[in-house]
Amino acid sequence: MPDIAPASLPAPPYYAVVFTSVRTAGENGYGDRAERMLELAAGQPGFLGVDSARSADGLGITVSYWKDEESIAAWRSHAEHALTRTHGREHWYASFSVHVAKVERAYGFLRPEDL
Amino acid sequence: MPDIAPASLPAPPYYAVVFTSVRTAGENGYGDRAERMLELAAGQPGFLGVDSARSADGLGITVSYWKDEESIAAWRSHAEHALTRTHGREHWYASFSVHVAKVERAYGFLRPEDL
Repeated sequence: MPDIAPASLPAPPYYAVVFTSVRTAGENGYGDRAERMLELAAGQPGFLGVDSARSADGLGITVSYWKDEESIAAWRSHAEHALTRTHGREHWYASFSVHVAKVERAYGFLRPEDL
Repeated sequence: MPDIAPASLPAPPYYAVVFTSVRTAGENGYGDRAERMLELAAGQPGFLGVDSARSADGLGITVSYWKDEESIAAWRSHAEHALTRTHGREHWYASFSVHVAKVERAYGFLRPEDL
């Protein structure tokens, strides 16, 4: 799986937004919108990277990394993102939580072919 | 899915440890050890909660929440956890990253039956 690896990031400090959610039953247009949101986020100022996983039981975690609080606030107020969040609360998620956290340290290993 | 929901947590500040990994091929005893680590972590002082998801493509994210840096350090130095980490680096993970971050704010919604 050479194209799959945790996001490569600069040295801390920066911010992480941890979005944890449980999906409702049914697709309801989720996949296309989720993909669009990832593309849109990746083009925002201050976006550093993102990792996302969802288990077969329906619980998913998406962690996006941002340069600073200003870039998180700007992404949060992006019109299309705001509309999609409202739609998501009504149609896609049985429950969710958001944690905004300042990354103080980071470590790990990536295989050389992923760098 | 009434038994699945993001972890319920106290008011910030507290800490999040974001562990993002890509599994190697094969089980290699991973499932039993991962379950044991979750049980062991849940019994540590300062443990607040955990959420975990792994996609079919092999990328997984586990976010554990802790009262303070001291409780993270104590869990990190727990003998059985340290041994299991070493084993994991050699056998289970093609790559991983760890981000230690101070949660500054949190919000979301849980259905009443999950509270």
